[in-house]
Amino acid sequence: MFLPEAVTIREVGPRDGLQAESRPWPTEAKVELINGLLRTGVRRLEVTSFVRPGAIPQLADAEAVLAAIDRVEGVRLSALVPNRTGMERAVRSGIHEASFFVAASEAFNQHNLRRSTEAALADAAAAAELGREHGLLLSGFVVTAFGCPYEGRVPPDAVLRVVEAYARLGVQSVYLGDTIGVAHPRQVYELARAVGDRFPELELGLHFHNTRGAALANVLAGLEAGVTVFDGAVGGLGGCPYATGATGNVATEDLVDMLEAMGVATGIDLDALLACARLAERHAGRQLSSHVLRAGKRPA
Amino acid sequence: MFLPEAVTIREVGPRDGLQAESRPWPTEAKVELINGLLRTGVRRLEVTSFVRPGAIPQLADAEAVLAAIDRVEGVRLSALVPNRTGMERAVRSGIHEASFFVAASEAFNQHNLRRSTEAALADAAAAAELGREHGLLLSGFVVTAFGCPYEGRVPPDAVLRVVEAYARLGVQSVYLGDTIGVAHPRQVYELARAVGDRFPELELGLHFHNTRGAALANVLAGLEAGVTVFDGAVGGLGGCPYATGATGNVATEDLVDMLEAMGVATGIDLDALLACARLAERHAGRQLSSHVLRAGKRPA
Repeated sequence: MFLPEAVTIREVGPRDGLQAESRPWPTEAKVELINGLLRTGVRRLEVTSFVRPGAIPQLADAEAVLAAIDRVEGVRLSALVPNRTGMERAVRSGIHEASFFVAASEAFNQHNLRRSTEAALADAAAAAELGREHGLLLSGFVVTAFGCPYEGRVPPDAVLRVVEAYARLGVQSVYLGDTIGVAHPRQVYELARAVGDRFPELELGLHFHNTRGAALANVLAGLEAGVTVFDGAVGGLGGCPYATGATGNVATEDLVDMLEAMGVATGIDLDALLACARLAERHAGRQLSSHVLRAGKRPA
Repeated sequence: MFLPEAVTIREVGPRDGLQAESRPWPTEAKVELINGLLRTGVRRLEVTSFVRPGAIPQLADAEAVLAAIDRVEGVRLSALVPNRTGMERAVRSGIHEASFFVAASEAFNQHNLRRSTEAALADAAAAAELGREHGLLLSGFVVTAFGCPYEGRVPPDAVLRVVEAYARLGVQSVYLGDTIGVAHPRQVYELARAVGDRFPELELGLHFHNTRGAALANVLAGLEAGVTVFDGAVGGLGGCPYATGATGNVATEDLVDMLEAMGVATGIDLDALLACARLAERHAGRQLSSHVLRAGKRPA
């Protein structure tokens, strides 16, 4: 079984998790959670989204959050950026990386992002220009990379077309997102290999939801395909406000617990992360989907 | 990614699931569930346990259950058998396969099964003799194969010793059980390869609990190591009455959903299985841990 010695975890709970909460969190609660996460050893953290504040009220306080959180050396802060207006806000906020998001399925872009795929990529291109001028790192998130609530199975070619468009914008990384939790390990392995073979210069990350219990199996398939960057959300926060039945992101602590047990280093202190998960659960006011938060760490 | 074309699923909900219920199910509820499961296409079903009725009150009605359920051509019925007395009951009940259970860790046998490893294997040997005389299939379950609540990490050699003892008893199959939910994919791959290499004549099955969310990742690792027999419990029923913090078995429907999505045939009708999971949830009177029961099947 081929596994890498180390991987990079991107914590997306404050963005992908909190945008799905029915009751928006107060800014102070977000800041408390993020400041905790910044001290777990995680090296990438997606903080918020610079979409129009009315579009996702849960993340309308993007500037206030970024102004209030600590800055910790060695942690790359990112945010979603849909267009040039969003990039102007991102530049002013002092984040390190701007992440575009476009679905691989036309229907999802039309219904949920209210733009055609072409228009979304054109908006990203205009934003990318400004981001590059200001020295931001750029990444591209492929929404519905494994399946779409409207179109069903998404052909790999549709994913490759969005990745190619991102490559032309000069992104350093692309992330493939299983927005509705339908990915399975064979598909993950094949798609990750296809993207990696065709775009070896791009860093590839994977983003899973545990909707059907297969998130960690999909991570394993990704590892075997050579992927070394994975998203997780503390506590298993999240879902997708656009996708019915989509449950939480894979819990970062479940991911870290399995990876470290296998000898794959994450650099994350699991005790510190579990303290953040307990905090997230208190603020959310409900039991989150994390397994390790319930069962405890594996015995050494 | 090497995957087999087909696998065999053994449904263990009526035994491993129901033995962990705090409130024993009425015999009629068990019979209703088992009769449903017999019509899902599953080819192996662990019905009950012939331990002393006082030891596991939840399964004290073993004979009554076996007398009442339907017999469906092509479904192998099995039960746990601890000793010769249990085998006498098993023979009278008309099951097809008797399954021994001995932990790979001495402390677990002493504390929870109230016998030394040696005594447990001697009891199994006496029972095996009687089972063979009556033409029963025999299998051996290795409890705590991946970790023990008392001894921690269980060395592969301890597992191989129990498997070797089972081989001498003439079992056709051995199952490795992750009793407390600590297995990780690298360990699963290595242990399955070690057992498979050393005992190529034995059929090897794997039994996972989803305690830390990694059950399906462990299944994937098992598949890649060449294993084609997996246990699941409908609805994710279960746990272990002996092991604190051990949560349910991997839900059979989560297992089937992932395997079929990958093109690995199980022979099981997922709709029929989900109807059984809903029935199990009604009888259990609480929300079970199954993911697919909540989220629904993957879209085709």
